[in-house]
Parts: sequence; C-alpha cells; structure tokens
Amino acid sequence: MSETVKVNLGDRSYNISIGRNLPVGTSLKSEQNVKAMIVSDSSVTPFYGLKCQKALQAQGIESTITPVPAGEASKNIQCAAMLYEKALECGLDRGSIIVALGGGMVGDLAGFVAATFLRGIRFIQVPTTLLAMVDSSVGGKTGVNLPKGKNLIGAFHQPIEVVADLDTLSTLPAREYISGLAEVVKYGVIWDRTFFEKIENNIQNILDRHPDILEQIIKRCCEIKAEIVAMDEKELGVRAILNFGHTIGHCVESLSGYGKYLHGEAVAIGMAYAGKLSVSEKNFAPDDCNRMIHLLSGLGLPTSIKENKPDWNNLNSTMLKDKKGRNNKPKFVLAEKLGSVLFGCEIPTETIKHLWLEEKCNQ
Amino acid sequence: MSETVKVNLGDRSYNISIGRNLPVGTSLKSEQNVKAMIVSDSSVTPFYGLKCQKALQAQGIESTITPVPAGEASKNIQCAAMLYEKALECGLDRGSIIVALGGGMVGDLAGFVAATFLRGIRFIQVPTTLLAMVDSSVGGKTGVNLPKGKNLIGAFHQPIEVVADLDTLSTLPAREYISGLAEVVKYGVIWDRTFFEKIENNIQNILDRHPDILEQIIKRCCEIKAEIVAMDEKELGVRAILNFGHTIGHCVESLSGYGKYLHGEAVAIGMAYAGKLSVSEKNFAPDDCNRMIHLLSGLGLPTSIKENKPDWNNLNSTMLKDKKGRNNKPKFVLAEKLGSVLFGCEIPTETIKHLWLEEKCNQ
Repeated sequence: MSETVKVNLGDRSYNISIGRNLPVGTSLKSEQNVKAMIVSDSSVTPFYGLKCQKALQAQGIESTITPVPAGEASKNIQCAAMLYEKALECGLDRGSIIVALGGGMVGDLAGFVAATFLRGIRFIQVPTTLLAMVDSSVGGKTGVNLPKGKNLIGAFHQPIEVVADLDTLSTLPAREYISGLAEVVKYGVIWDRTFFEKIENNIQNILDRHPDILEQIIKRCCEIKAEIVAMDEKELGVRAILNFGHTIGHCVESLSGYGKYLHGEAVAIGMAYAGKLSVSEKNFAPDDCNRMIHLLSGLGLPTSIKENKPDWNNLNSTMLKDKKGRNNKPKFVLAEKLGSVLFGCEIPTETIKHLWLEEKCNQ
Repeated sequence: MSETVKVNLGDRSYNISIGRNLPVGTSLKSEQNVKAMIVSDSSVTPFYGLKCQKALQAQGIESTITPVPAGEASKNIQCAAMLYEKALECGLDRGSIIVALGGGMVGDLAGFVAATFLRGIRFIQVPTTLLAMVDSSVGGKTGVNLPKGKNLIGAFHQPIEVVADLDTLSTLPAREYISGLAEVVKYGVIWDRTFFEKIENNIQNILDRHPDILEQIIKRCCEIKAEIVAMDEKELGVRAILNFGHTIGHCVESLSGYGKYLHGEAVAIGMAYAGKLSVSEKNFAPDDCNRMIHLLSGLGLPTSIKENKPDWNNLNSTMLKDKKGRNNKPKFVLAEKLGSVLFGCEIPTETIKHLWLEEKCNQ
C-alpha cells in the first residue's frame, strides 16, 4: 500500500510516493546507464544507505554513496564544493542523477549541488525525517547557509521524484520527529482548519507514530504543499504563506547558534509569536491563537524561549536581513483565522519590539 | 545611434543595446529604491566603474562597486563566496540587482552569484570585451570553474538587460580583442556564410576596430546568438552548435593552465581541429576548412599548438570529463559546409588520436 501525490508543474511535474519499501528511480526506468550519486549523512547512511542503493539497482541504476557529517553545519559552500569534486570523481555527467537520502539539510545541500553541477542535473529526494517528508523535500527549494544566515544561497530546482519511506521514521530520534510536527501544524493553520482539528484529535496517535495516522498526515501535508507550489513555484506571491512562523523562527534559529534549536522547534516558537502578532494586527481570535499554541505544546514543541533569549537589537537587525524582505522591511505571514493566513504583512517595529520585550518580563 | 537586438524568451525576454554612452538600468526605471552591486575586475574598474555608476544613478539606482582580481583565476567558488558576503554587506535584497561590468569572467561569476544569491536576483550584463559582447553576456549561461575544469558549476540565469558600450573596446588590449574574434568567425561558420564572407572582406577594418564594422559585426553575432538561444534556452539540442571548436578548445585551455591561452585563442585552435575532423567525418570541403583556418590566422589567432602540446592521454581523459558529454563519450559539433554544422557527433577515439598525434609530427 502506498499513496501518491502529484506536484503539477508542467514539464517539471513529479510524483511524491508515501509508503513502505518503495522503489526509487522509477521515473528513469527506460534509460540505460544512468549513474547516481547518493548524498546522505553520517546518521542515515548506516541505516538506509544500502537499502537505497539496492532500490536504485532494481531499476538498473548504479550508485555510489557520499556521506556528509550529520547536522546543519554541513549545509555550507565548502561542503557543496566537496560534493562537486566527488561528483566528478564518480564520473557523473549531464544524464546522471543525485539522490538526496536524509533530512532537510541533506535535501537542501544535495539539491543545490544538483542544481548547479554542470548547470543542473536531475535529482531525487528520499526524505528520512518527518520534516523533510512534509516540507523540505517538496517544492524545489535548494540551498546552503552563509555564516550570516540560513539559505542565503540557493536555487529553485525541482526533484524528478520524491520517495517518502515511512520505515525510515522508526529510527528518527523523538526530538527530531517532534520538531517535524511544527510544520504539520503549520499546514493546518495556513490552509485547512479540518486538518488542524484532525491533529488536535490525534495527538497521542501521532506521538506514537501510528502508521495509519502517519501516512494520512504526511499525505495531506504533501497535498497542501503541492497545491501551493503549483500556484506559485518561485515564491512571487502566495507561496510565502509556507513561511508562517519562519520570519522570527529563522532569527531564533540563527541567533541561538545553529543546533541549539532544531528547525521545527524554532518555527514553533516563531508560530507562537506570529499568532500573537496576528491577534493584535489581523483580529485573529485569541482563543484560536491559544488553541494553536496549546496544540504545539501538546505535541512537545517549545512556544517561547526559556533561556538566553536573544537581545531585541540582535533580533531586529537579523530580521532586516531576512531574504524575504525588501527595502529593509521584514514581511510577516499572519493568521486571520485557523486555516487562513495573509502574506506580505508589514508590522510596525515597535509592535514587534513590545511583544518581544513583554515576553521577556513574563519569564 | 545605437542598435537593439531582442532575445525572445517569453517572460525572460530582454534587450541587447549596442552603441556608445548607453544608459544602464532602463529596464528598471519605474522601480523605486533599487540597490545595485556592480561586480567588476581590477583592470576594468579604473576605466569604467564610475561611468557605470553614473549611468545607473541617472536611472535612480544607487550602486556600490566590488572589484575582483582580473583573470580567469577569479572565476571560482571562493570568489563567489566573497561576493555573497559583499552582497549582504551592501544590503542587497530580492529586489536588488547585480551588474556585471567586465569581460566573460566577470559576467559568468557575477551572473552565477546573481543566480544563487537569495535563490536568484536580477542582473544586468555590461560587457567590456569583444568576447563578452558577442558571446558570454548573451544567453544566460553563468558559472564558475573547478580545479578539474571550466564552468563545471553553474546555472542558467538570464540577464534582464545587456548593454554593450563600444567605447569600452578602445582600451581592450590587442590580444584580448583578437581573442574575441574567434567567436565572431564561429558565428559565420555555424550559421551564416554571408557573414563569414563579410569578415573575410573586412579583416583590416576589423583589426583597426573601425566603429562601423564593429557595430555591424557585434549586432550580427548577437542576432545569431539570440536566435539560437530562443530556440533552445537550456541547451537540450541545437544550442550545442555554439560549442563549435569548444570540445578540444576547452581541453587545450585547461591542460595548458588557465591563462596560457585566452579563451578565444583556445577556441580558434579547437575550431581548426573541429574543421579537420569535419573534413574526414562529414565531408566538409577541404578548401572551406582551409578558408576558415586562413581567416582565423589572418585575424592573428593561433590554429595549432606551437609548444608544450598536451599529451594525447591527458587530452583524451580531459575530453571524457567534458560536461557536454554523456556516458563518457565526448560530443562534437562538426561542419557540413560554411554556415551549417551538426551537433552531438561522436567520433571514434582513434580518429581524434590520429589527428592529434599527426599534428605533433608536423611541427
């Protein structure tokens, strides 16, 4: 049993498969002599490297595996440069593929290498974390970090296939799994109130990683993301709503030093702030805001910063550098109600400052 | 007086202006508060940096200049990384532009930075060499070199405007100017016999950089390139004909150490080899092949390697890594007659080897 979600992007359309023991590379099966380089990380390779190679081999694709050190610190230009050299050593040419086997870091890094090696070769996403399955592996955003910020370098480069094998979630550490749930809640808030309520009603099943609920929520998240990406591939407009919670979330993640907060944890904190700003700026019902914060907490996610809260001036200057901004004005995604948000919102600096400092006093 | 050539690429269409004292940034004139970073090189900045800044200022665009060391050695990932940092320091955002002021190296490097900074911002090409005006500034190929080969990393990213100011050619060293003429001859060979003959009939005027002939030949080259690029933006097919002379040319350039041969010089050598291979493989008339070699020589270009000729094994292994190849088979563009070529041609290794070694004996 497996589910398929199609991402409709004209000649760049592709399928997301969700299930167990799925084939990899089916979109290439009529081609001969395709070489693949699997990029993975040191925490994933021992568990799933061989399985992925065998799945490719079953489609007639010979592959090599290049692991990178696990963790966000590998998502940089130097690591991309190392992968270019490895790609040459492996004899990759314009007909070859790169397979990203891992979480969001591996997908973004390997995707960026695929986007830029020989001016772009094809790549397949094989996400092994919940976060990557529901968010980063779909939609074609690839990139690496600079010391001054996340994803400042990158390209839009769609995969030709996304294979979400639910078995890989069984070995995912609890903290990483829970981190991914922040993005799951996000889809409910930005797009689908019924889905939000489904999450509310299945907290324990979700935390238990019950197979049925996993398949359902991952499929629904992919459907929502596919729908949004198909409307606005390059984020000229509506795709920005996927950044709900990310404006402050990215700042929290970067100011705390990459690694202190996982991406989803920082996004959960950012969603809580975005929710409160929505209450004051867009008449988002306080009860709904509390419901969202309650759901995030119920799933085990942080919704405020308990210690070493970044100084306001640091937060503000980091926000001004946000790549979504223009002319030095950070843009926010704000909720009108559960299931409906607005993008491109500007908020008076004083309002954000007030909320940021107020929260500090409450601790 | 100026000439305009349009590159038709749907919503990525843009104009090439050819003339003197041209405005820069006209495609942006209704926008407010656009920031620009001019990337230039240390040999161009002193002559044209200020002029370019003033031209932008006349359109209401404030700019900063970031020079890189002149020479192909700057076209690498480290230099791109430096430019990303500078772009952040200059406060560039998604609405900003990068202006590439210089030759092909600057255009490729700055274009790659524009293609990947914040997942892609707009850029303007202001070519200051003949080579850049007739070839590299048009068509959206951007990239940097790896130690193992030229342009191995890159992206397709079209400029929004190309401004070829003929005044800049007056300060171009003779060797660089002549190097650019190799690509001019190439357009005649691959596309337009009449244009080839026009070059033959105007050798002295061309070498004298006579303004009228310069404007005419640059315009015609841009028209041909625009026509080919509009048919096949991403080089899936016919665009490959622009690589006539480049398969062996790139190898000669890289095996001799970047800098020994200028790009156009290596391409002229590659064209001579491609012509001879065309005679044996595609019945290209020996007289026409000699005419082409004679024209290249007449313009002052090399058509064979006089000293330190790379060893055959090195040439062969470098050709196998050519990014245009697939499954370890280098592809050649071969001439049928002057003005008409074929792409994707495979040639028996022994044939290339024989020609390569034969030439050595003749010296």
